[in-house]
Amino acid sequence: MPEIVTAAMLVIGDEILSGRTKDRNIGHLAEIMTAIGIDLKEVRIVPDEEDEIVAAVNAVRARYTYVFTTGGIGPTHDDITADSMARAFGVPCEYDARAYAMLEESYARRGLEFTEARRRMARMPRGAVHIDNPVSTAPGFRIGNVHVMAGVPAIFQAMLDNVVPTLQGGARMLSATVQCPFGEGIIGGPLAEIQKRHPDTIIGSYPKYGDGKFWTELVVRSRSEEALEAARVEVQSMVDGLAAAG
Amino acid sequence: MPEIVTAAMLVIGDEILSGRTKDRNIGHLAEIMTAIGIDLKEVRIVPDEEDEIVAAVNAVRARYTYVFTTGGIGPTHDDITADSMARAFGVPCEYDARAYAMLEESYARRGLEFTEARRRMARMPRGAVHIDNPVSTAPGFRIGNVHVMAGVPAIFQAMLDNVVPTLQGGARMLSATVQCPFGEGIIGGPLAEIQKRHPDTIIGSYPKYGDGKFWTELVVRSRSEEALEAARVEVQSMVDGLAAAG
Repeated sequence: MPEIVTAAMLVIGDEILSGRTKDRNIGHLAEIMTAIGIDLKEVRIVPDEEDEIVAAVNAVRARYTYVFTTGGIGPTHDDITADSMARAFGVPCEYDARAYAMLEESYARRGLEFTEARRRMARMPRGAVHIDNPVSTAPGFRIGNVHVMAGVPAIFQAMLDNVVPTLQGGARMLSATVQCPFGEGIIGGPLAEIQKRHPDTIIGSYPKYGDGKFWTELVVRSRSEEALEAARVEVQSMVDGLAAAG
Repeated sequence: MPEIVTAAMLVIGDEILSGRTKDRNIGHLAEIMTAIGIDLKEVRIVPDEEDEIVAAVNAVRARYTYVFTTGGIGPTHDDITADSMARAFGVPCEYDARAYAMLEESYARRGLEFTEARRRMARMPRGAVHIDNPVSTAPGFRIGNVHVMAGVPAIFQAMLDNVVPTLQGGARMLSATVQCPFGEGIIGGPLAEIQKRHPDTIIGSYPKYGDGKFWTELVVRSRSEEALEAARVEVQSMVDGLAAAG
């Protein structure tokens, strides 16, 4: 059996829960994970509250191979991710010497004061490993299986690009899509029968609606190319048969 | 003290976790909740797996005033939300007589067969109350404090419009935004001081990045108009002072 590698994501931030900011990181991480053969199994969006962040990260880091967090690593008082991770792992949160030096140098070069707030960004749980930030200097970090990254999408994506080569990918989940001009009510019965005959695949039915019409995208997924193709052929035949029957 | 009403959201669907479909319901629910004075405190995205759905809904329904779910209520084999809710509440999942009659009538009127798959959509946990679906007939339902709705955004939004008048809103969270041309490193220190002086407000700092520049949106939130205004004035003064200092 191919190895299954799993992941969870923690989105940290009141601004997402209030609707003020629309998350754009979940979809990006989901696509990247799928591409490298890691199953994203759960996402939680939690507020800027230390107890909530600690409880959520401890719940997911024990269950999944990898955890990815976004948000709360900036210099302001509501950026409490580093402290929360330190508490979750039971280690002190302290100035990281290398991050401190990098930030100090970066601000000096730009002729900017290295304020108390800016120094906050050099704080990490003891034992954390840097995740480089090519956009705005302040590094994210990894502690255990938890990867802590920025919430600003351009910075998150740049950090994630640095993390991906360090991950152990699993056998990639393959997928094939069959476009279906019928709604789910028509195909639901025969599709369930096909699913039963192909237990090594996951067959998903995604209803679409627009301009007063329903249609469906049928997606077959499997880690085995042969199993995928066998199921896909049956799904396509079902759709063709229904179309021919008019 | 104004009453605090809380909510959680459960997004059910492999297609969101695989990145194939980008969620558009979280942001919509978040905005509606904020508008009617309900604090959305947590969102979880879970796969189409009964154990995961049951565990997640039981975790959140005990903690928050309301729970809203999207996804998994269609007619296909991967639509397992009704069964999962029944198991979570410890009641049978059975054909709801009114939903069955509505669906039967709707398909008869359109000259369509009332297939086994279509009949599935009339299944609900015993004791569930309908949530009308003006788009595609098949109703959602409420059981206890959990509101089960469709995942297709147009249908979710129409169902939610029917749910909102039934909810008990809390004191509305008010907010005021101060645009700040400086990055968080500059304002982090003084902003934390303002937050300390205004404990009845939540002051959020949201870093923005684009075209190689950083700026910040500072959002003051409070249930008290007076507290909000007092903090907002201080935040604006801080920004103006920094701008004048050049």
